[in-house]
Amino acid sequence: MKNKAITPRDVDFAKWYTDVVKAAHLADYSNVKGCIVFEPNGYALWEKMQSVLDKKFKETGHQNVYMPLLIPENLLKKEGELIQGFAPEVAWVSEGGEKKLEERLCIRPTSETLFSDYYSHVVKSYRDLPLKYNQWCNVMRWEKETRPFLRSREFLWQEGHTVHETQEEAEEETRKMLQVYKTFFEDYLAIPVITGKKTEKEKFAGAEYTLTIEALMYNGVCLQSGTSHYFGQKFSKAYDISFKDRKNQLSYCYQTSWGTTTRMIGALIMVHSDENGLVLPPKIAPLQVMIVPIQNSDSVLKVAENVEEKLKKEGIEVKIDTSDKSAGFKFAEAEVKGIPLRIEIGKRDLEQEKIVITRRDTREKREISLKEDIVFIVKNIMETMQEEMFSRAKERRDSFTFTCHTLEEVKEQMNKQPGFIHAMWCGEEKCELKMKEIKGTKSRCIVENGERIDECCVVCGKKAKHHVIWGIQY
Amino acid sequence: MKNKAITPRDVDFAKWYTDVVKAAHLADYSNVKGCIVFEPNGYALWEKMQSVLDKKFKETGHQNVYMPLLIPENLLKKEGELIQGFAPEVAWVSEGGEKKLEERLCIRPTSETLFSDYYSHVVKSYRDLPLKYNQWCNVMRWEKETRPFLRSREFLWQEGHTVHETQEEAEEETRKMLQVYKTFFEDYLAIPVITGKKTEKEKFAGAEYTLTIEALMYNGVCLQSGTSHYFGQKFSKAYDISFKDRKNQLSYCYQTSWGTTTRMIGALIMVHSDENGLVLPPKIAPLQVMIVPIQNSDSVLKVAENVEEKLKKEGIEVKIDTSDKSAGFKFAEAEVKGIPLRIEIGKRDLEQEKIVITRRDTREKREISLKEDIVFIVKNIMETMQEEMFSRAKERRDSFTFTCHTLEEVKEQMNKQPGFIHAMWCGEEKCELKMKEIKGTKSRCIVENGERIDECCVVCGKKAKHHVIWGIQY
Repeated sequence: MKNKAITPRDVDFAKWYTDVVKAAHLADYSNVKGCIVFEPNGYALWEKMQSVLDKKFKETGHQNVYMPLLIPENLLKKEGELIQGFAPEVAWVSEGGEKKLEERLCIRPTSETLFSDYYSHVVKSYRDLPLKYNQWCNVMRWEKETRPFLRSREFLWQEGHTVHETQEEAEEETRKMLQVYKTFFEDYLAIPVITGKKTEKEKFAGAEYTLTIEALMYNGVCLQSGTSHYFGQKFSKAYDISFKDRKNQLSYCYQTSWGTTTRMIGALIMVHSDENGLVLPPKIAPLQVMIVPIQNSDSVLKVAENVEEKLKKEGIEVKIDTSDKSAGFKFAEAEVKGIPLRIEIGKRDLEQEKIVITRRDTREKREISLKEDIVFIVKNIMETMQEEMFSRAKERRDSFTFTCHTLEEVKEQMNKQPGFIHAMWCGEEKCELKMKEIKGTKSRCIVENGERIDECCVVCGKKAKHHVIWGIQY
Repeated sequence: MKNKAITPRDVDFAKWYTDVVKAAHLADYSNVKGCIVFEPNGYALWEKMQSVLDKKFKETGHQNVYMPLLIPENLLKKEGELIQGFAPEVAWVSEGGEKKLEERLCIRPTSETLFSDYYSHVVKSYRDLPLKYNQWCNVMRWEKETRPFLRSREFLWQEGHTVHETQEEAEEETRKMLQVYKTFFEDYLAIPVITGKKTEKEKFAGAEYTLTIEALMYNGVCLQSGTSHYFGQKFSKAYDISFKDRKNQLSYCYQTSWGTTTRMIGALIMVHSDENGLVLPPKIAPLQVMIVPIQNSDSVLKVAENVEEKLKKEGIEVKIDTSDKSAGFKFAEAEVKGIPLRIEIGKRDLEQEKIVITRRDTREKREISLKEDIVFIVKNIMETMQEEMFSRAKERRDSFTFTCHTLEEVKEQMNKQPGFIHAMWCGEEKCELKMKEIKGTKSRCIVENGERIDECCVVCGKKAKHHVIWGIQY
C-alpha cells in the first residue's frame, strides 16, 4: 500500500519532502533556479489560505491595495538598515524597452519603502490615521540555497503595512496580527506554534522589534512561520510620514508590518504528511471529500451523486471520481493529494445499504448505513480529524522540546535529536554566534515572561537576561 | 453640487479621467513611471472583477496555477514571432544577489513561453489532455506613453492557457472564453461590446488568430477590452509539447490563451462616470449602498442599523457612514466613489416614517415609507439601474457608430466625432496603414459574417474582402 514514488520519511527527509511535492502535484521546477511552478493542487491550497486570512484581515479593519513591483534604488536606500539587510539578495532591473535605465530598479523583496513613500503623500492629519493596508503579491529574494515553498527566489505572500497616530496603537496592532497568525496556524493548519520576540540579530532589518510564530517540523527542524514587526518611527522619519497631531503640531507616525508566505504550504507538508503523500487538515483542504465509485454502474453512481449533493448543500467541498481508472488507483490518488475523507461506494456494500468512509490521516475505515445522517457523520469525522491532527502535532512538538543548562547539553541534544531547546541567554550576540557553531543553531525567539531556568547564560556563564528558544531552521 | 476637484468631461476628457481616478481614490502615481499604486477603492473593484470572473473560469472547467515572474532570454526566444512582438517592450533583470547573471531574465510580459515549457514536461498522452489553466498575476510591458489603468508598465491581469488534443476543441475554447468575456462586460460592467477577429497586423504575436471584444468610451475612442487567441500548433512545435495520440502516434497539441486586465477599471470610468466622479453598475460595485444618517442621533442611528441589517442579510454590500463629517460632505463622498445607492435617514423624514433613496447615476430620489419592503425596493432599484446603465451606454455607442464608403467620409467623421466606423477592406496591410494616417485609426476587428456594405475597399477601391470596424484606440 506504500506509495512507491515517495522515499520513506525516515530514510531521507529532504528527499521525502520533494517527493511529496512532486507526487501530490503541488509544484514543479521551472527554468529559473529558485522559481517554482505552482501546480493546481499547490495553488488551490494557497487560494484557500488566502481566503481564510483575507477574511480575518478584513474583519480586523484592513483593506487591500497593490503597490508597484519595482523600487528605484534611491527610494530603497532611504532607510539604512533595510537596504543593508536586503542588498545582498535583491534582483535588479537595468534595461527596459531596449534602453539602459538611468536608475536601477529593484524587484521588491518586501514593500516597506513603497508603502512608506505612498503614506508620505497621503497622510496629512491625525484624522487620516490609522491606515491599515495589506497586499497579496509576489516578491523576490535572490537566495543561494532554495527548496520548493520553504525558500525560493520568488514567492507569494501577503504583507500588511499600517500607520498609526500613537506608539500604543501601533504596538497593539503588531501583537494583534501575531495573534491572527497564531490562531490561523493552530485552528486551520493544525500546527501548534510558539510566539515570542526575535533577538536584535534575528529581527527584521529596520524594525524596532519583530514578533514571530515558530513551528517545529516532523524532523525537529524549526520554521519561522509568520512575523509581525513594530517599526516605531524609523520609516516615518526616513520617508517623512508626518502629520498634524491633535495639538496641531507636526508629528511622525508609528508603523507596523506583518507577513506570511507560501512557505506555509511547506509547513503543512513537513508537519502532517506521511509516506503516502500529503495529509491535509479538513479546514484547509481545498477538496475535503472524494467519493470513489468502486464500479461505474448506474446504481452506484446514483448513490454517489445523492451523497455528493447532500454534502455540497452543507458547504462541504466534494467531488466524485468518475474517471475510468481502477478503484485502487483512485484510492492512491486521493491519498497522495491529501484529501481528508474518501467515501467508497460499491455494489456489494450497497446490497447491505452501506458505504465506507476512510480518514486520510489514520486510514481508519467506518461503515455507514445509508439510513444514517451522512452529512452529520462527515462533519463529525472532519472535526475529530482536525482536532486529532493538531494534538498529534503538538505531542510530537512537545516530545521534541528540551531544556538545556550547558553548551555541552545543547550539543548532545542537537546531535541526538534537534528540536526546540529552552536555555538562558545573556543578550550578547557573540553567544548567539557560538550557538550557531552547533549545526547552525539559532535563537528562534525570546520567550516573553519566560520561566527563569538558570541564573547564567548557557554559553558564556555570565548573568542571563532572557529565556530563549533555540533551534536549527529551514 | 458639482465636484470641484474634477475637470468637466466636455472641457478636457483626459484631465477629467485622471481627476476621477484621483478623486475617487482609485489609484495614485508611484516613483516608477507607468507603475501605479492601486488604492483601496481601485483594488476592491479589481477584487470584485476577479471574484466574478474566477467563478466563471472554474465553472467552465479551468484551474488556477502560478508560473514564475522571470523568463530566461533563451526560453523567450524559442517562438520567433512572440519575441519579435514583445522584445521592444520588456524589462530585463541582469543582476541578482550582487552578481551579474549569466543569462538575462525578462520580467514576463505574458506567459505563453512559461506555460508551454511547463506543458512540454507534463503532457505525455492524449489522456493528459485537455489542460485548462489560468493565472492571476502582474505583468510588465515597457510602454512609452502611460495612463492609469488603461496603459501602464506594470498591470494586473488573468491569463488563461490551455492545451488540447484537437484543433476543433482548441478553437471551441477560444470562442467560449471570448463569450465569457462578452457576457461579463455586458452583464456586470454594463458595457456593450462588439466581437470579431483581429487582422493579421493587429493580432497577438505568435497567434494563428485573435478574437477580441471592443468597447467604445464616452468620447468615441475605442478600447480593446479582452482577447482570446488561437495558437494552433505554433507554440507546441516551438516548445515540443507532443503526446501519444489515440493511434499511439506522436502529435503536437493545440493551444489557446485569453486575457483581461485592470484596464477594465479604466473602461468602467470612461463609459459610465460623470462630472461628480465614479459611477458604478450595482453588480460590480464593491459597496452597493451607503446609508447616511443626517444626524448622528440615537433614533436616526437605530433606524440606520435596522436598515443595514436587513440589507446585509440579503447579501447586499452596505455600510453606514457614521463619521462626524457633515451630511453634505458624506453625500459628495458617496457620489465621487460611485456607490450605486445612497439612503438618507433624517429626523424630519423619520417623523413621517420616511427615508430617501438616491440613485448615483440619475441622482433620482425616491421617498420610501418605513412600512414598505425596503430590501425588495433596493434590489429592484439596483436591477433597474444596472439595466438602464447598459442601455444608456449602448445608445451612446450606437449613436457613435457610423458607416463610411470612402476614405474622405472616414476623415470627415473622425474629425467631427470619432467612434466605430464600419467600412469594407481589401485585406492588404498597406490600406490599414493608410487608414492609420487619419488620427491613428486602426482596424478594431473583422466582423464575422458581416454585411457586405460595399464591393470595394474603402481605401484602395480594389475588391473588398472583409467588413471591418475601425476606430481610434487607447
